[in-house]
Amino acid sequence: MMNAAILGCGTIGSGVYEVIERNQKEIREACGQEIRVKRILDLRQFPGQPFEKLVTPDIKDIVEDPEIDIVVETMGGTKPAYEFVKSCLLAGKHVTTSNKALVAAHGTDLLETAREMHRNFFFEASVGGGIPLIRTLYTGYAGQEIEEITGILNGTTNYILTKMSREGSEFADVLKEAQQLGYAERNPEADVEGYDTCRKIAILASLVTDREIDYQKIHTEGITKIEPVDFRYAESLHASIRLVGSMVRARDGISLLVAPELIPEESPLCGVSDVFNGVLIRGNTLGVTMLYGAGAGKLPTASAVVADIIEIAKHREENVPFGWHEGALSPMPLEKRKGRFFVRVSGSGRESEGMASAALGGAKILHLDGEKEFGLLTGEMTEEAYAEAAARVPGIVKMIRAAV
Amino acid sequence: MMNAAILGCGTIGSGVYEVIERNQKEIREACGQEIRVKRILDLRQFPGQPFEKLVTPDIKDIVEDPEIDIVVETMGGTKPAYEFVKSCLLAGKHVTTSNKALVAAHGTDLLETAREMHRNFFFEASVGGGIPLIRTLYTGYAGQEIEEITGILNGTTNYILTKMSREGSEFADVLKEAQQLGYAERNPEADVEGYDTCRKIAILASLVTDREIDYQKIHTEGITKIEPVDFRYAESLHASIRLVGSMVRARDGISLLVAPELIPEESPLCGVSDVFNGVLIRGNTLGVTMLYGAGAGKLPTASAVVADIIEIAKHREENVPFGWHEGALSPMPLEKRKGRFFVRVSGSGRESEGMASAALGGAKILHLDGEKEFGLLTGEMTEEAYAEAAARVPGIVKMIRAAV
Repeated sequence: MMNAAILGCGTIGSGVYEVIERNQKEIREACGQEIRVKRILDLRQFPGQPFEKLVTPDIKDIVEDPEIDIVVETMGGTKPAYEFVKSCLLAGKHVTTSNKALVAAHGTDLLETAREMHRNFFFEASVGGGIPLIRTLYTGYAGQEIEEITGILNGTTNYILTKMSREGSEFADVLKEAQQLGYAERNPEADVEGYDTCRKIAILASLVTDREIDYQKIHTEGITKIEPVDFRYAESLHASIRLVGSMVRARDGISLLVAPELIPEESPLCGVSDVFNGVLIRGNTLGVTMLYGAGAGKLPTASAVVADIIEIAKHREENVPFGWHEGALSPMPLEKRKGRFFVRVSGSGRESEGMASAALGGAKILHLDGEKEFGLLTGEMTEEAYAEAAARVPGIVKMIRAAV
Repeated sequence: MMNAAILGCGTIGSGVYEVIERNQKEIREACGQEIRVKRILDLRQFPGQPFEKLVTPDIKDIVEDPEIDIVVETMGGTKPAYEFVKSCLLAGKHVTTSNKALVAAHGTDLLETAREMHRNFFFEASVGGGIPLIRTLYTGYAGQEIEEITGILNGTTNYILTKMSREGSEFADVLKEAQQLGYAERNPEADVEGYDTCRKIAILASLVTDREIDYQKIHTEGITKIEPVDFRYAESLHASIRLVGSMVRARDGISLLVAPELIPEESPLCGVSDVFNGVLIRGNTLGVTMLYGAGAGKLPTASAVVADIIEIAKHREENVPFGWHEGALSPMPLEKRKGRFFVRVSGSGRESEGMASAALGGAKILHLDGEKEFGLLTGEMTEEAYAEAAARVPGIVKMIRAAV
């Protein structure tokens, strides 16, 4: 038997308790032993809850309890999560967390501490919620050179974009609706500005490259400026617009970007709607695969934590090779990134179209009924070349990157 | 270092050689040692090929070579694959195979032999080709009660169905085209009659239930009777038609079925087009996930074999808990299966529609322009109840099960 403690009895933390209780039989079969929750850290009390008596407000009751083998961190944020997790590892406990902020900010240090202590620091639930993603990178994709990861990694923004696409509605209206449904936070900045996606793609890229990647160095754009008319252009290109975090292994290094992109209808990512997440992974000989599932939610996320617990129980006394090592990797400068660009240009008429087309090497001009503007899809070019050319085109209203 | 031998130098076998050569660095990083191909069994010679000197026509050169640790079986079929694999296991070698026929027919025996010998018998590539599927069932889905697996597991039929759907073409014409493109065999029976899908869902169901499942006991229907008009009805129901193998944990047991089904557009399975495969997995607390990728093809399938080799290299002297145990599980009788049924009925007019609707408890009547027939979608009922009711309705042209 192994004893676990849960730090933070919020949505995910209480979900972990629930999954461990409900799936006792399956868990025992999977790891050959019983897992029991012995303690829950929370400043609140939970009268009437089945775990009422397990709750303690004092982290010492966990750190100093030699019977506790596994600590589940589901508090969120980095303070005091970092300090608590670090002391648990130093006390010889394994840790699993669902907290992407903690992993993105302190992953390198915590992974190293876990190695020194012959324990494990896992974080399956921190990216892609219930999608079996991180461990699969070490098993199903073992032996691959991962050439690309493109992920719809944030359910809130995906809900907003698919809803806007279907109904032709405005960003602000759909955001309000999402907030009412509980799909978006009252302060939605972390989601809609792409910060959440940024931390997640940084974690995935670190896992693939084995190097620390500072998420603050990743160029990040959100979806607040996407308008209904953008979807009409997208449709005319047989594409949709999604917020993606992407990592591409290019000749000049690792290209990392978080931005809304035009995704072609035939891409499996286009089938990822509403609050779901999907991660497209391209291996050099395996080709394209995609993993799809609930990117958030109490029980899916808690289930991913429990999968970590099972892996820990199978490797009780050893550090499983996992995560990245020290030595920072700087993303390739954005200017060197290559891609296609969709731009909207105000005005109309042959002259302005010709001018824009000449400057941008426009492969395709697009018109929508009733709009006093036109769209243009460039060929493949670097971000630098695009920026230079775009500066010479008057009236550019918007640019969206295009994976079409 | 570990030495591997490949049995059968066809498409997959030569692909395994190629992936091991190309991804040496990644493989070494993943398992901490070098993997080398020492022998290839084939009756043919391969003059000029880089592996020319490794080829032997004699299985003894492999079975009796104590330096060979891992055997990769990619011959296909069960004779002599079964005998060869068994002797390799008994000689203390690990085995990985891409051969679903071997696994479906002799899996129980070979898994047991591997356990007795403290070796491993793996078969990641036998289902879903390059999709990281089987190992993920043991890691990402660990601790879950898997309630449902619904898989598009055969690329040939999926290519045919998506092509028919897009172009309104006839089955026979698309099949011919698929044969010319090399997507379908000259004798396409195993694919189009669902036999291939049947073996694959039997393997997945055995993995999930831990019991031997005789694939011959699974009710299996193919796609040869699907017509263009069926897709028009499907479209009117916001659905598509796919050949799926499904396992559902029902109250009365494990329901298994291979048949074309109406799949709603909002299902992620509907985004699985052309020769790709997709497997939807529903866990009791994890919810719905889907794994998508190349279901066949030289390098994707070979890459899955290589992932097995890496897992073997990480567990050189031990049997990793894997696969199912003896003790057959009989699928739930088809009659007890519950679902909805789409039927096409010849004739028209209120009277016949009323009669069909009364007998079948029709929830929805469908009309297509220019057709002298109508469609009907039943509510949920058992197969038994459907069969009884359908016998009372004159003029039923076709029935397709509907997951809508």
